[in-house]
Amino acid sequence: MADPELKAAIVQDAGDGRVLMLAWMDDEALHRTLTTGRGTYWSRSRGSYWVKGETSGHVQHVKAVALDCDGDTLLLQVDQEGAACHTGDRTCFDADVLPLS
Amino acid sequence: MADPELKAAIVQDAGDGRVLMLAWMDDEALHRTLTTGRGTYWSRSRGSYWVKGETSGHVQHVKAVALDCDGDTLLLQVDQEGAACHTGDRTCFDADVLPLS
Repeated sequence: MADPELKAAIVQDAGDGRVLMLAWMDDEALHRTLTTGRGTYWSRSRGSYWVKGETSGHVQHVKAVALDCDGDTLLLQVDQEGAACHTGDRTCFDADVLPLS
Repeated sequence: MADPELKAAIVQDAGDGRVLMLAWMDDEALHRTLTTGRGTYWSRSRGSYWVKGETSGHVQHVKAVALDCDGDTLLLQVDQEGAACHTGDRTCFDADVLPLS
């Protein structure tokens, strides 16, 4: 089970609709995102907050945030500067397409 | 922390790119999805597999599946019959837009 205090945050390009990445938010990360307009998340591996682009410059300008029907997932529409993925790919889903049989 | 055996599955409309819902998959649900071409998930609340649309008829015809850079999130492109959300809304993100300040 997911930590009940964490919501999954789906990040979508506000321009062309491509899904860029998935990250995690607690209430504080959501508050910071809503008040600063910068995608801000909770790192489960590091146990700390991170602002997307803080070191890479690949900032997310948040245009809209919606909560899903059961309140545990967020959908962010963003203007993404540069690559969304830490690998340098535009999205985190560009590298590994699985075969449908 | 999420159950390490579960991957988050983001479901996107293959036609217009709208994000429809988020669900969960283990390896078996992914295998069933890839081999049947129908969105099949693991229900964390019920502890069982479910095929989207099995009771509602709102089936997902899966067109593509991609794994993200760190291997814990899937992105599905689907042709969605009817509403994706159990509330009857087209997506699970239609009802609750949060205010940006």
